[in-house]
Amino acid sequence: MRMIDLIEKKRDGQELTKDEINFMVQGYTRGDIPDYQMSALAMAVFFQDMSSSESVHLTMAMVESGDQIDFSEIEGIKVDKHSTGGVGDTTTLILAPLVASVGVPVAKMSGRGLGHTGGTIDKLESIAGFEVEMDGTTFNQLVNKNKVAVVGQSGNLTPADKQLYGLRDVTATVDSIPLIASSIMSKKIASGADAIVLDVKTGSGAFMKDVEGAKKLAETMTQIGNGAGRNTIAVISDMNQPLGFAIGNGLEVKEAIDTLKGEGPEDLYELCLTLGSHMIYLAGQADSTKEARTQLEDAIKSGRAVEKWKTFIEAQGGDKSVVDDPSKLPAASHTFEVKAKEDGIISEIIADEIGIAASMLGAGRTTKDSRIDLAVGLVLNKKVGEKVKKGESLVTVHSNTKETSDVVEKIYESYSISPHDVESKPLIYDVIK
Amino acid sequence: MRMIDLIEKKRDGQELTKDEINFMVQGYTRGDIPDYQMSALAMAVFFQDMSSSESVHLTMAMVESGDQIDFSEIEGIKVDKHSTGGVGDTTTLILAPLVASVGVPVAKMSGRGLGHTGGTIDKLESIAGFEVEMDGTTFNQLVNKNKVAVVGQSGNLTPADKQLYGLRDVTATVDSIPLIASSIMSKKIASGADAIVLDVKTGSGAFMKDVEGAKKLAETMTQIGNGAGRNTIAVISDMNQPLGFAIGNGLEVKEAIDTLKGEGPEDLYELCLTLGSHMIYLAGQADSTKEARTQLEDAIKSGRAVEKWKTFIEAQGGDKSVVDDPSKLPAASHTFEVKAKEDGIISEIIADEIGIAASMLGAGRTTKDSRIDLAVGLVLNKKVGEKVKKGESLVTVHSNTKETSDVVEKIYESYSISPHDVESKPLIYDVIK
Repeated sequence: MRMIDLIEKKRDGQELTKDEINFMVQGYTRGDIPDYQMSALAMAVFFQDMSSSESVHLTMAMVESGDQIDFSEIEGIKVDKHSTGGVGDTTTLILAPLVASVGVPVAKMSGRGLGHTGGTIDKLESIAGFEVEMDGTTFNQLVNKNKVAVVGQSGNLTPADKQLYGLRDVTATVDSIPLIASSIMSKKIASGADAIVLDVKTGSGAFMKDVEGAKKLAETMTQIGNGAGRNTIAVISDMNQPLGFAIGNGLEVKEAIDTLKGEGPEDLYELCLTLGSHMIYLAGQADSTKEARTQLEDAIKSGRAVEKWKTFIEAQGGDKSVVDDPSKLPAASHTFEVKAKEDGIISEIIADEIGIAASMLGAGRTTKDSRIDLAVGLVLNKKVGEKVKKGESLVTVHSNTKETSDVVEKIYESYSISPHDVESKPLIYDVIK
Repeated sequence: MRMIDLIEKKRDGQELTKDEINFMVQGYTRGDIPDYQMSALAMAVFFQDMSSSESVHLTMAMVESGDQIDFSEIEGIKVDKHSTGGVGDTTTLILAPLVASVGVPVAKMSGRGLGHTGGTIDKLESIAGFEVEMDGTTFNQLVNKNKVAVVGQSGNLTPADKQLYGLRDVTATVDSIPLIASSIMSKKIASGADAIVLDVKTGSGAFMKDVEGAKKLAETMTQIGNGAGRNTIAVISDMNQPLGFAIGNGLEVKEAIDTLKGEGPEDLYELCLTLGSHMIYLAGQADSTKEARTQLEDAIKSGRAVEKWKTFIEAQGGDKSVVDDPSKLPAASHTFEVKAKEDGIISEIIADEIGIAASMLGAGRTTKDSRIDLAVGLVLNKKVGEKVKKGESLVTVHSNTKETSDVVEKIYESYSISPHDVESKPLIYDVIK
C-alpha cells in the first residue's frame, strides 16, 4: 500500500477502506508517512468529505494510536458530555454534581483549555484546596462512592489526533466536518465513556456559524459514536451570545453554585436540564427524557443537587464552604461598570469578542504556559432582547489591573443596541440521535 | 503575509495576487515555507484551479527563482518548440535543421529525458562525435553562423519548479492544468525563447487522454506565454498511436534523415510541416502559415533541408556522412519480426504500452543514472487503419539481448486487430492562439 495512491483515491472522491485508513494513521503516527502527504490528504478530505464509515474508521484508528481509559471498575453506564466550545459555558461544572445527585455516575476527565477562559479543571481550582490529580484506582473508587469525580487528563490519549490536528492547524484544513468530528470523538471514545451527549454550539460565538453546519457536524459525530458502539446524541444549542452571565473562572464557579441552588441564569439552567436529561436517559436511569428532567428538577428543588456539589468538592480536598459563602472564591482587586451609551434594546453580544475582553483581563491562556488569573472576568447585566437605558450597566468588570481601556472598548464593540425590538433566537435548535 | 492565509484563500476559491504568489514561491524555494503547506496549497489548486493571471504570476515567479538564458546576442526572433510528450516523437530532430534551412534561428536547449526512449540530446549522440556541451558564447556564434545549434541543458533553471514538481509527484497533485502549464512554460521562458510553438498531444499515449483536456491545457499555456510577452501558439495533435515508425534513439535519427529527404512517414512529415510553419510565421519569416509551409516544402524538395542537417551535424563535431549512409548509426546485434496472429485491420496501437516495450529493450532510462542503448528499438511496419494478413510483420525489433519474450508479449498487448474498418482520427485537432 502506498500513501500516494490513497491521496489520489480520496482526491478522486472514492471511499477509503478500513485497512487503508489504518495504514495511513499508523504510518503517520510512526513517522513513515511525511507531513506533506498527510496535509495533501487532509485538503482532499476538505473537498471530497468522508463517508460515515470512513469517519468511524479514522476515529477508531486515532483511538487505537494511544492509551484508552478503562472505566470497567466503575458501576453503571458512564455518560460523558462534550461541548464544542463557546463563551461562558459553565455546563460541565453544573452537570457533574447534578447528574450524580440522581444516581448516574459521572467519571469526567477534563482539560485546561486554551480559550477565553480556562477549562473545567482551571475553574475547579478556584475552590481552595481542590485537587484534580489522582491515580486511576482512587478516581474509580471516588466515582463508585459519590457517583462523581473530575480529574485532569493524563496518559497518552490519541497521539495521532494531536499530530494531525497540529498539521491541520497550519495547512488550512481545520474546517472539515469529518476531521473535526473524528478529532472530538476519538478523544471522547479513548476517555472511556459508554455513552456520549454532545452539545454542538451554533451562532456567531461558535465554530459553526449556521444551524445547518452545526447539524451536519452533529450528525457526523453521532454516526461516529454510534458506529463505535457508544450510544450518542447531540443537542444543537445557541451561541449567538454568551451562555449565562459570568465569563471568568471563579465567577463561573459562583454561577454554577447559583444554578445548582435553582437561582442561576435562565438559559444556562435550561441547557443544563436538557443536556442532563439526555445523560440520565442514556444511562438508563429514566424511561424518557421528560421523566429524567423531572428527576433533575426535583434534585435542585430538594437541595440534593447542591448537597452533591458539596460532597464532590470535599471528596477532592476542596473547601465546600464556598457553596454557602461564595465570597471565599478568588476576588478581583476592583470592579467597575461598563455603561450603555444610549437607550434601546440589546440586539447582539458577539460572544467571541466579549470572550476576548475576558481573556485580555487574564481569564484565559494565550499560550500553553500562560498563567490564568482565576479572579478576573465579566458579568453580563444585560443580555439580548433586554431593554436598556443610557447610563445603565451593561457589564460588571472584575479586574486586577488599572489599565482597562482596551477591555472596555472591546466590550462596547461586542454589544449592539437597537432602537427596535429584536427577534429572539431559540436556545435549543434540534436534537440529533 | 502568512502562507496559511494563502492556502485558505485558494481553498475558498479566491484569486491570489502577484505579491502573494511571489511570497509563496520565494519562501518555498528558500525553505521558509515547508513542504506540508505547499502540498496543501497544490491540492487546493487541484480543486479550485487558477485564473490565467495567477498562472502567469506562478510561471514568472518560477522563472525568476533561477538562471535565465540570454539569447540577445543571437540575431532574429528565436522560436522554441515544445511537445508535451509522446512516443516516437522525432519532431525536434527534424524541425531544428528544417526551420534553420529557411533562415529562422533555432537555438535549442534540450534534455536527456526519462521516458520510453532518450531525449533529443541522447538521440543526437547516436551520431559519432556529436558534441552537445559547449559554452554560451560558442553556442550563440554557432546559431548566428548556421542558424542552428542544440545544446544540453545547463545552469540552474527554474529551481522552484524542480522542487514543486518533486513534491507534486508524491502528493497526487500532478494532474492540475495550471500546475502542469506553469511547470512547462517556466522552463521554456527561462530558456530564452522569444516565441513558442507548443505541440500538445492528446490520446491514449498522451498525458491528456481527451481532446477537451488537451485544449484546456493548450489554452492555459498560450495564455501564460502571451501573458509573459512571448508569442505562443499551440497545436493539438494526435497521440492515439506512436508518431512515425521508429521508437528508439538511433532508429529515430535515421527516421529524421528520411523525413528531411522527403522520404519519412506521412504523419511525422505532416506534423513537422504544421509545427514548422507556425515557427516560421511567429519568427516573422512569412506572412502566413501557408506561405511558411511552401518555404518548408521547397527546402525539403530542393535538398536544402538535408544540407542544413549535414552542416548542423558537422558544426557540432558529428560525422555528417551518416546522412548519406545511415548504416553508420549504432546497429543492434540482431533484428526479428513480430508477426500478426490473424487477418484484419489495425484498430489500435497503445502508444504507452509499445513505448514500454522499447524501454524494456534498453532504449529508455528507468532512473536518472540508467545507461541508454542507442542501437535498440522498434520499427512499426503496420499502423492504425492498415490491413494486415496473418504472418505479416507488425513490428521489427532491434535488440541486443536474446531474451525478448516479454518485449514480444508487450508488443502483442499494445496492438489490436479488428475484423472491421476502423474510424480514422485526425492528426491535428486544433490550433490554439
